[in-house]
Amino acid sequence: MATLVGRPKAIVLLSGGLDSATCLALAHSQGFAPIALSFRYGQRHQIELEAAARVAQALGASRHVVVDIDLRAFGGSALTADIAVPKDRSDLAMAEGIPVTYVPARNTIFLSFALALAETEGAFDIFIGVNAIDYSGYPDCRPAYIEAFAHMANLATKAAVTDQRALTLHTPLIHCSKAEIIRTGLALGVDYGMTISCYDPLPGGKACGRCDACHLRRKGFEAAGLVDPGPQ
Amino acid sequence: MATLVGRPKAIVLLSGGLDSATCLALAHSQGFAPIALSFRYGQRHQIELEAAARVAQALGASRHVVVDIDLRAFGGSALTADIAVPKDRSDLAMAEGIPVTYVPARNTIFLSFALALAETEGAFDIFIGVNAIDYSGYPDCRPAYIEAFAHMANLATKAAVTDQRALTLHTPLIHCSKAEIIRTGLALGVDYGMTISCYDPLPGGKACGRCDACHLRRKGFEAAGLVDPGPQ
Repeated sequence: MATLVGRPKAIVLLSGGLDSATCLALAHSQGFAPIALSFRYGQRHQIELEAAARVAQALGASRHVVVDIDLRAFGGSALTADIAVPKDRSDLAMAEGIPVTYVPARNTIFLSFALALAETEGAFDIFIGVNAIDYSGYPDCRPAYIEAFAHMANLATKAAVTDQRALTLHTPLIHCSKAEIIRTGLALGVDYGMTISCYDPLPGGKACGRCDACHLRRKGFEAAGLVDPGPQ
Repeated sequence: MATLVGRPKAIVLLSGGLDSATCLALAHSQGFAPIALSFRYGQRHQIELEAAARVAQALGASRHVVVDIDLRAFGGSALTADIAVPKDRSDLAMAEGIPVTYVPARNTIFLSFALALAETEGAFDIFIGVNAIDYSGYPDCRPAYIEAFAHMANLATKAAVTDQRALTLHTPLIHCSKAEIIRTGLALGVDYGMTISCYDPLPGGKACGRCDACHLRRKGFEAAGLVDPGPQ
């Protein structure tokens, strides 16, 4: 892993999943010194955070910040509340509307913390691995949303006002298929065996293989003509 | 206090200070059923939260939600980190630049949580007591910032996309002087004796009387020709 000295810092949102791991590798390959940012937000899958820590270290993050927030108080999602994660849904069912795994305003909250961390670290670049293809059901993964957040962010901070230096919100995966994301990451040396995508892991941390995230991951590896190194 | 039954819900950011108490009273007077939202964010002045609870009850909030977040991990402000709160500053000094009491991206983080709560509560109105006159040093109190946040918020949530119903971000105090805010609140029956504005209260909870917030509050009551009922 190349030295990070002299590189500009970038904040990279890191869930421990396949997309954000690829995003971290891309930030590093583009010459940034990445600072990984994860959240303990009452998600069902705490095992994500262990994956995020492994990925942050393996892919050259200079620091891994984990912020505690409690979205459970708000309820409203299968990822944080007492709602069952849907299993074995068809492609057609997945394409219809916004899934119950949607967490209200999650990306807005995550990006707001990234903005605060960017300001205190003196970073002007934030990476988020949102994807408008496979997850088009989430409103806060769409390009129009990302553009609006970036515009707001550039009016929000002391750094933006005082330094007159624009903050850039990078979404390198937004138009990629899952197969393209996987090929990109593999070319950059990402070990996807370290990542976990499942919304509802089994006891012991193994992926359920049946939720939307497992389904999309499996299809992505198949489309790329590759075998998922697991454990997912 | 009038019944809240049948009123549309509104999320009101409530710090326990003078401005947000006035904002809550305004939301109530405008026909909303207000849900107060406060944060435990590592602020020096935890006593704020006790004031917020009193104010929420007195001014007709249907519920008071307190969210724990840890901005201290990010440092960078006299309100959360080990930086001295400035005292006895002149009006001229206060008018110059962004004060060290600025918390990176604070309003963006607070409004993001308000957005999440609005969505889970089925509310389409958020009130925030920002003020561009007395606190022009804070970038995230300016009208351009507020407009940008509102635009982003209307692209961010399932409610905005599915219900096709616009979320409104209310900033009724943004162009008011402190004296105007005080007169407005008094006309609505706000007891400012319940509120605390100080950035750095003395042991026991009494206002220091010397920080920027105490200074602005004192000037506001003087300009309104009134006596501050304290304890501030």
